[in-house]
Amino acid sequence: MWTASCVRLCSVLTALGTSTRVHWLPSVRGISAAQIDEEVAKLLELKARLGGDDGKHQFGTRDYNPKQMAIREKVFNTIVSCFKRHGAETIDTPVFELKVGLPSFSSGTEAVASRPSNTEETLTGKYGEDSKLIYDLKDQGGELLSLRYDLTVPFARYLAMNKITNIKRYHIAKVYRRDNPAMTRGRYREFYQCDFDIAGQYDAMIPDAECLKIVYEILSELELGDFCIKVNDRRILDGMFAVCGVPDDKFRTICSTVDKLDKMPWEEVKREMVNEKGLSEEAADQIGEYVSMKGETSTPDAGGSSQRGETEASDAHTAQNPVGGMDLAEKLLQDPKMCQSKQACAGLSDIKLLFSYLQLFQVTDKVVFDLSLARGLDYYTGVIYEAVLSQAGVAPAANEAPNGTSAEESVSVGSVAGGGRYDGLVGMFDPKGRKVPCVGVSIGIERIFSIMEQKAAASAERVRTTEVQVMVASAQKNLLEEKLRLISELWNAGIKAEVMYKKNPKLLSQLQHCEESGIPLVAILGEQELKDGVVKLRVVATREEVDISRADLISEIKKRTSEA
Amino acid sequence: MWTASCVRLCSVLTALGTSTRVHWLPSVRGISAAQIDEEVAKLLELKARLGGDDGKHQFGTRDYNPKQMAIREKVFNTIVSCFKRHGAETIDTPVFELKVGLPSFSSGTEAVASRPSNTEETLTGKYGEDSKLIYDLKDQGGELLSLRYDLTVPFARYLAMNKITNIKRYHIAKVYRRDNPAMTRGRYREFYQCDFDIAGQYDAMIPDAECLKIVYEILSELELGDFCIKVNDRRILDGMFAVCGVPDDKFRTICSTVDKLDKMPWEEVKREMVNEKGLSEEAADQIGEYVSMKGETSTPDAGGSSQRGETEASDAHTAQNPVGGMDLAEKLLQDPKMCQSKQACAGLSDIKLLFSYLQLFQVTDKVVFDLSLARGLDYYTGVIYEAVLSQAGVAPAANEAPNGTSAEESVSVGSVAGGGRYDGLVGMFDPKGRKVPCVGVSIGIERIFSIMEQKAAASAERVRTTEVQVMVASAQKNLLEEKLRLISELWNAGIKAEVMYKKNPKLLSQLQHCEESGIPLVAILGEQELKDGVVKLRVVATREEVDISRADLISEIKKRTSEA
Repeated sequence: MWTASCVRLCSVLTALGTSTRVHWLPSVRGISAAQIDEEVAKLLELKARLGGDDGKHQFGTRDYNPKQMAIREKVFNTIVSCFKRHGAETIDTPVFELKVGLPSFSSGTEAVASRPSNTEETLTGKYGEDSKLIYDLKDQGGELLSLRYDLTVPFARYLAMNKITNIKRYHIAKVYRRDNPAMTRGRYREFYQCDFDIAGQYDAMIPDAECLKIVYEILSELELGDFCIKVNDRRILDGMFAVCGVPDDKFRTICSTVDKLDKMPWEEVKREMVNEKGLSEEAADQIGEYVSMKGETSTPDAGGSSQRGETEASDAHTAQNPVGGMDLAEKLLQDPKMCQSKQACAGLSDIKLLFSYLQLFQVTDKVVFDLSLARGLDYYTGVIYEAVLSQAGVAPAANEAPNGTSAEESVSVGSVAGGGRYDGLVGMFDPKGRKVPCVGVSIGIERIFSIMEQKAAASAERVRTTEVQVMVASAQKNLLEEKLRLISELWNAGIKAEVMYKKNPKLLSQLQHCEESGIPLVAILGEQELKDGVVKLRVVATREEVDISRADLISEIKKRTSEA
Repeated sequence: MWTASCVRLCSVLTALGTSTRVHWLPSVRGISAAQIDEEVAKLLELKARLGGDDGKHQFGTRDYNPKQMAIREKVFNTIVSCFKRHGAETIDTPVFELKVGLPSFSSGTEAVASRPSNTEETLTGKYGEDSKLIYDLKDQGGELLSLRYDLTVPFARYLAMNKITNIKRYHIAKVYRRDNPAMTRGRYREFYQCDFDIAGQYDAMIPDAECLKIVYEILSELELGDFCIKVNDRRILDGMFAVCGVPDDKFRTICSTVDKLDKMPWEEVKREMVNEKGLSEEAADQIGEYVSMKGETSTPDAGGSSQRGETEASDAHTAQNPVGGMDLAEKLLQDPKMCQSKQACAGLSDIKLLFSYLQLFQVTDKVVFDLSLARGLDYYTGVIYEAVLSQAGVAPAANEAPNGTSAEESVSVGSVAGGGRYDGLVGMFDPKGRKVPCVGVSIGIERIFSIMEQKAAASAERVRTTEVQVMVASAQKNLLEEKLRLISELWNAGIKAEVMYKKNPKLLSQLQHCEESGIPLVAILGEQELKDGVVKLRVVATREEVDISRADLISEIKKRTSEA
């Protein structure tokens, strides 16, 4: 019923609005004021039910008000300048792509479900849900189109269409999921993804290390509190499963169980492996020993791993030993069982190499080699990583998790970045099967927005929504022309300036506007100032006033407002 | 057939791509390499037919490559910093809004068609076409949604929902039209709009003058060549029609004929008025006299106006007299016929006031008071304006015209900005009918992109797609670790730096990379430099090399790469 009324209203809104920049008023005149009042009343009722002015829409999207936009701009600037510092280019792709012919592939789960396995039920259950996550455009004749679900499809298509074998690109854009919006938890159907990827055939672990350096720089600069970057390698996981006696056809399903270790204690995970997945008690215990190893943990112990759930929060702190990761990798290379797996050895040597580079980048204090990290295993071919904030407090924005997984697969509640190496994908699109190895990271930007917004709300200082440096004001009446002449000079000199759109505003209201919108300076004109060829420059914070000659005004304002 | 193959391919692309950041590889494994090869072959064939690597898609959208993105970023920076200089905030709204219940209103034309008038046929002809321009989302259960058609609907809805009575906001975002893509002419189904609007009850013409100042600043800074901003007022047009004896019910249709004066000579326009619209010969001639008046034109003359078509190009130059507009307004206020219309007088006095403010802003050299400008008349309530580039040369991007009108209504081929005052709209959404007067301008950003891209293509200098300041290179082998240590120092100091992802790249290939991507400096490490605690800093352009001590390197790089 809300929808109905809102649809009708929006039809009117659109009717009027669309015509606003188009030619015909009749469309507007075609609607009676009474009709509009009625529809508006419905909208306001609807709005009330939706919970007021937070700009959230019942259909899982939201408006961003100027304050939110200011925070977003700040976050984007930090992230983009980091990407640019590392020499990345950017591309853009359309918001819709040709429609998915086989929705079964939209999330891959159906393919999983179609595999004969004891997990079929769970996954088919998921499948029905996930295929609904894609927004299709209505067939209005012509092509069948869908809104993009992530930024990786377009990236893959772009590389394939243009035969690009080398690129370091970032892409920040909105993606769409017909997910159940949980707006209170920061989950929306329209949300930003923020991807950085390095494609190209290079020497081992150098780009991988740079991706981790980038995560470290961004999370540090955004001051989100202490964090921890977990690192693992899918080859190590596969090798580990092999030496622990997990049957090949169970690798994937056992892995998704391991993946739950950051949500449930070892006992439950083991129970699932043995009772649900039919793994042997012994295999499970061996896995338990390995996955409990991380950072500088010296000896695996089931007891320790059983407390994993509780000790989770302290991950970031257990990683202070800068060579912990390398030690563990070395230790595992000596491990009589592990070293039986060529795959595992390859992965472990690369982990050692990676950590040696990370030491040069001086980021090892936050990086933990964690054998329980299994994210993206089914897709990634090498190193995988995920950044987690140590402090809780922020509601999980599940569908905005770094890898864009939806609530169900959200890897870690505090996860704010993640990625890894995927060498196989692009090659599959090349007619000659030429491979383009890729490693990338996705920043959980929406989660970060929520945190920044909460911090802003908590902090005393006002978030400015404009960058105005000076307000051109007058003490007496009939000075509008003088003010306009002055502000034009300021604008032409590149100064951000405002003047009230009133002929004779009260000085008080002009000063109040400065207080409210955080404008630091006021340039006050009065008869006397005009006679003396000066401007009274007032510092809003201190109320100090000083006469500046017109000739010096611009340099004085620049001096006083330069961030340097 | 292209579509078919492309749909199938993209289903595969999406299948694989979507799973890249989600958990399941099986979706990838579910497709045989052969299948993919086949589909890829089809894509490449399709791509060939579509004309290669320009990133244009058959379905009316396109990818933006790094070079195009670099140009876009430059244009956006210029425009946004102008908006910020004038104290604007920004908002964002979802890409889709609740679906239009009454597509008849989507463009307003049906309402026009429904008016009993001898133009019905023409307009109903249009109607069928225009209602198709809105992209609907498929009804997948839940709300009926459509992709936004412009940014004004969302703005109006936003003000209404949040009871905002004062805001100066800009909004740059993509909008969607199921228009016939004419990509060669720069017309796409997905394109940017770039709107700046001032909402609030203020004293006459002050915000209006600022909008014109903004257009002047932006077009000047973008160096698009000479331009002309035509100004008129719908009250003057209505008054003029009244005093010329146009029946009230013919105002609108006669106006749309006047609107054609920049496309066809007066004779044809008059013929349409008289033969098609049934206006009297006398009324038409009187209109002819008035609409031929602009800038400092001293005496209306039918002969002159008949050559209007040919003299069009010189508009910008016929506007050199800074008070031409004011003179004409004054002259018309004295005009015995015109002064009979209260409306016209009000409009003319405001034009005088506007020009007095424009003189203070020193922009009158490009502003022409042109009685033939009729754009947006049906919607606007006061001042209207449109900026036109004097030099032709760029293919018209019709559906990206400033006001987002589609090809059919494109006002002027060279139009790059336009807008006006619309005091009636927002009030229609308020339950109590409270008015929020608005004046705004829309920059024809896609047109400007095309021009900038053409200029870039024509000019010798390379468009840089990264901002890298220095390449960390080595002359000898086995210096990767030293290079990584150095580049980490540079990154931490905020320097934009790159290093090759190779253990032992050739110095030549490192220097070539700098040449190709326009990196100005190379920091070269060698055994000797390491011994001496220096870095050899090479200027790529001049090949000059100088040893800099490690301690001074960062400041030296900053000094040499500062734009100041």
